[in-house]
This record gives sequence, structure tokens and C-alpha cells, in this order.
Amino acid sequence: MKKFYNTIENLFNESIKGVAKAHQDILKLNPDPCYITRVAPTPKNKVVVISGGGAGHEPLHAGFVGKGMLDAACPGQTFTSPTPDQMMAAAEAVGTEAGVIYIVKNYAGDIMNFEIGAEMTDFPSESVIVADDVSLPKDHSTGRRGVAGTLIVEKMVGAAAENGADLATCKAIGDRVANSTASMGVALTSCTIPALGEPTFTLAEDEMEMGVGIHGERGIKTMKLGTATEIVAIIAKAIDDDLKPQKGQRILLHVNGLGATPPMEQYLIFDLACQYWEERGVIIERSLVGEYTTALDMAGVSITVTLLDDELIGLWDAPVHTANLRWGC
Amino acid sequence: MKKFYNTIENLFNESIKGVAKAHQDILKLNPDPCYITRVAPTPKNKVVVISGGGAGHEPLHAGFVGKGMLDAACPGQTFTSPTPDQMMAAAEAVGTEAGVIYIVKNYAGDIMNFEIGAEMTDFPSESVIVADDVSLPKDHSTGRRGVAGTLIVEKMVGAAAENGADLATCKAIGDRVANSTASMGVALTSCTIPALGEPTFTLAEDEMEMGVGIHGERGIKTMKLGTATEIVAIIAKAIDDDLKPQKGQRILLHVNGLGATPPMEQYLIFDLACQYWEERGVIIERSLVGEYTTALDMAGVSITVTLLDDELIGLWDAPVHTANLRWGC
Repeated sequence: MKKFYNTIENLFNESIKGVAKAHQDILKLNPDPCYITRVAPTPKNKVVVISGGGAGHEPLHAGFVGKGMLDAACPGQTFTSPTPDQMMAAAEAVGTEAGVIYIVKNYAGDIMNFEIGAEMTDFPSESVIVADDVSLPKDHSTGRRGVAGTLIVEKMVGAAAENGADLATCKAIGDRVANSTASMGVALTSCTIPALGEPTFTLAEDEMEMGVGIHGERGIKTMKLGTATEIVAIIAKAIDDDLKPQKGQRILLHVNGLGATPPMEQYLIFDLACQYWEERGVIIERSLVGEYTTALDMAGVSITVTLLDDELIGLWDAPVHTANLRWGC
Repeated sequence: MKKFYNTIENLFNESIKGVAKAHQDILKLNPDPCYITRVAPTPKNKVVVISGGGAGHEPLHAGFVGKGMLDAACPGQTFTSPTPDQMMAAAEAVGTEAGVIYIVKNYAGDIMNFEIGAEMTDFPSESVIVADDVSLPKDHSTGRRGVAGTLIVEKMVGAAAENGADLATCKAIGDRVANSTASMGVALTSCTIPALGEPTFTLAEDEMEMGVGIHGERGIKTMKLGTATEIVAIIAKAIDDDLKPQKGQRILLHVNGLGATPPMEQYLIFDLACQYWEERGVIIERSLVGEYTTALDMAGVSITVTLLDDELIGLWDAPVHTANLRWGC
């Protein structure tokens, strides 16, 4: 395994100090229990937005803490759910009478630990579960995984909370965005989890793994490596079959690099995905291309689509000032 | 070779369309000859800042076109200098009576082609050559390479030009920033140039390549893979020996991911570099961590330091609105 580290045990703990130091104008770190909050205090009457999850997906979630998005993020160890005491401590640090909304990717550990954390605090709270990965069927036993669509939910709920929406409204918006969002990923290589020291799966030189999640698990199908256009057609069709955008529908199109795939390839995939939907009369109203929800050093990309309306466009465009999404302020 | 593409020949040309589409609020593409300009017209009395270089280093340079930074960027094919007609066409599209300043990484092809391009236009012009790679000695036959420090020169010259500085002042600032900036990189793997189809060099599992550039060339030394602290000490010492920051000196510290190294490791390197200079009484006044000057899918990082004073801090902090650097507007 070739990585930059001192000891595997301390890689995450040392790294998160660097995140806090690099963005000290925006966020601060509480090392133990580990959570990240905004430097600027949260207004007393504002609904507080908290997310979190295993490390290894950076910049998700700490990179999205700041005005217009998250109030706090709770990072677990690599690909490991944060513990309930992290969520409790974060909520106690930033919580308000207006309530706390938790944005949780659909993994059993995350859901359980966020739930216990919420029960340990007295603030009124709601959770939005993100389960945007359409490579799994809707009736999958543990439900679909939460992947790159999560940041879109965080952005829009964060904007609503910043605008003064109450807890019920934030919850309704979060559920609506989550239900309007679909993602699917493809990998050319696995990733290497530091504690394992070797790739979690292997592929031949002419193979790709379709329908991967963000934890180095195998996808739904190992396929012969196709052209970029063929790959986009497979993923876009799965998303299209799920969301069924009509002619004239406006969408947010997000191409996400999973770690080791360069911008040149990400933008190629984006261009082809634009063509796919434009040919069907769907309007690419907003877009986002880059590494936002990574799986360590996995080579691959995911495509995410959110169906938009005027309200959601307003929430997407609203000012945001975080380490990794920043506009309008 | 595992990459997302349709044909090797068209990978760059297809991808750059995606860049323009994803950031159509900021930049626009002229496909042939290929250059990227701002959407917003350049004021008539403003010095125009143009950069460029081979593709494969994205987001450099197109990602830095916009208010407060570049007026135009000329991307060549992968790791290939742009041609003089690109620079000429870009200068004619955005040039003003106030003059054109070219920011050029120190590679023979880039320098020659920018020079010919400048001679083919009637605008008064100056060039700033960036040669920040301290892994090569100052008296190296072709001079030091221009690497990740380039964006710092682009940012500060761009801010000066936006503030109304004249051509001579922009040139003086550019030279001063270039001379106050030092970088060095390390790779854990080579990159794969699409047209070659295989890694440009190979390393054993316990080896790293110290002093790499950004074109997949070997560095100055193949070494046994060290801990992150040991690696930072080697690079930081080389930079320190070159710039000789005194106690109390303020610096901009930039840790750049070369392509396949995840944020977790980049931030670890950043944290360790902070410690290195803080122990020496040097003040980390500003910082930047992320993938800004990549070498396709190379696993590795570089560290860049710029010595700061009040004027340079002001230029760094000045509003910038590009695809990949954005603050203050």
C-alpha cells in the first residue's frame, strides 16, 4: 500500500487537524469527541443542520460546514460510522430551540448511531435519509445506499435553514430533494482502505465495476470496459428510468470524481451526460463537476441528477460559504 | 490503460467542451484555435492576463479564468505546449491598449510558443516566467521547471491587473511573486499519459520518487518510501534552503494533490508542513490545500511556499471568481 501517513492509526486524526487549520476562517475542530463546527456562531432561532459519516469521502462532510450549508459535521474513522457521542456533542455545541435536522446517508450504522445520538439530546429533531444510489432496486433489503446526492440535500436544506425555515419545512424540503435525486457510479479500480492495506477488489485491465458505492465494495456487475459514451449511456439510463424526467424538466447534473480520476475525464463524462439528457429535451439548469464525495483513491466517477423546480433552484443558488462549495458570499 | 474516453485523439477536445459547459456563467470556449476567455468582457483600460500550457494539469489553467485572475487560457494537448496561433488568437480576442501579460511555466516549448504568439500581435506585452521547482538547482541548464507555484503568480498578477495596475507594475509583481515562490513534489506512482497507454515510470512498492515535475518524468531521486513526517522534512528543507524564511516571516503554504492522492493525505501533509515551519517561527498566514496543478492520475503531492508581505497578502485576498478559486465576490 502506497500512501502518505505516519501510522495507520493516526492518519485520520492527524489529517483532520490539517482540515481545521487550512480552513480556520470557516470551521473549527473539536477533537474528542470529534466534530467540526462553524467558526461563526449559529443564530439562536435557526434550525441547525448536522451531517456526518465515515472518513474517506472528503470533502464530504467537513468541507460543507459553513454559512448556507452544515452547522456541524461528525466524521467517523475511515469508512466507519461516527459514534452517537459525536452526534450528541455536536448537537449540544450548536443546537438551538428551533431544532436539529440530521442528514444521514442510508447505512445501517449511520442510521442507528445518528438515532441514538438524537435521543441523547433534548432538542427537537428530524432526520433526512439519503438513499440515492439507483444501482440497487428500491425494494433492496437494506434500502439503497446514500452516495453523492447527499451534498445536494445538505446544500438545499442548509439554504432553507439559513433562510429561516422551521424544522418541519426543512424536513419536508430534505425529503423532497432526497426523493428527487438519483445517482450511480462506476469504478475502474478499487480503493485501498489504509487499515486493510490492499485493494478491496481487483479488476482485469479490460474490466470495469458498474454500480459501485463509496466504500470500496463491489458494484452490481463487473463488465467489459466500454467507451465513455457507452458508460454514460448505462448510468444515465438507470437514473432516467428512476427519476423519469419529462421533456422540458430542469435538472441539476452532478458528475463526481471518486478519487483518482482526473478532471479531464470527469469533464468528458459531464459533457456526454449533458448530451444524453439534452437529446431527450431535459434542461441542464445547474451543474457541478469535481471530487465532492470520494472513495479514497478509487478511480471512477458517479453521475447524480436532481429534478429541479423554482424553489429548489433558489435553494441551490443561495449563498454558501464552506471550504469546498462557495458562491454568493 | 484504464481511463474514461471515447478515442484518445478526442479526449481533450471533448473534455474541454465539458469544462466550458459546466462553467458557462464564468468562461467560454473558442474551440479552434483553442482558448478559453471570460464571459464578462474585459474593461478597455485593464492589463490582460493570459496563461496556458499543456492539458493534463487541470484545473490549471482554464479553472482560473475569471474576474480577479486570468482573462484567457490556452490549453495545449496533453502535456504539450499550446501553439503560437492559440496565444495570438486569445490575445486578439481579449487584448487591450493597456497591454498583455503572459504567465508562462518554464518549459522550452511553452516559452518559445508564447514568445512567437506575443510577437504576432500588436499589443504591448510582458512575460513572467515561473520556475518554482527547487528540486532542480538554480543553474540547471534549462532552468527550473514551473509547477504548482504558477497559480499563485496568476492569482496575484490577476488581482493587480484587476485593481488597475499598469503593465510594468503587473510585470514587477509577477517577477517578485515568482522569485518569492518555491515548490517541490513527490510521487508514489507515475501517471499514465493517454497517448502512451502505460505509466511513464515504475516504482517498487516501497519506493517513492522525490522531486518530480508535473509531466510524468522521473524526479531527482528514487528513495525508500518514508513516513509522512520524513517526506515533509525532505521537501520542506529544500524549500527552506531556497527561500530562507526568517523567524516571523509570513508565508502562503500550498499543498497540491498531483491527481490520485486523496484529500485525507493532502491535509495530513499540510498539517505536518505547518508544524515544520511553525517550529521555525515562520507564520502560516494563508493556505491552500487541494488538487490545483495535477499530473493526470499521478499519486503524489507537492508543497509550495510563497513569502508574503502586506502587498502580496492584499493581492491574494482580493476577490476572485473563477471555476476553481472563488472568494470575495
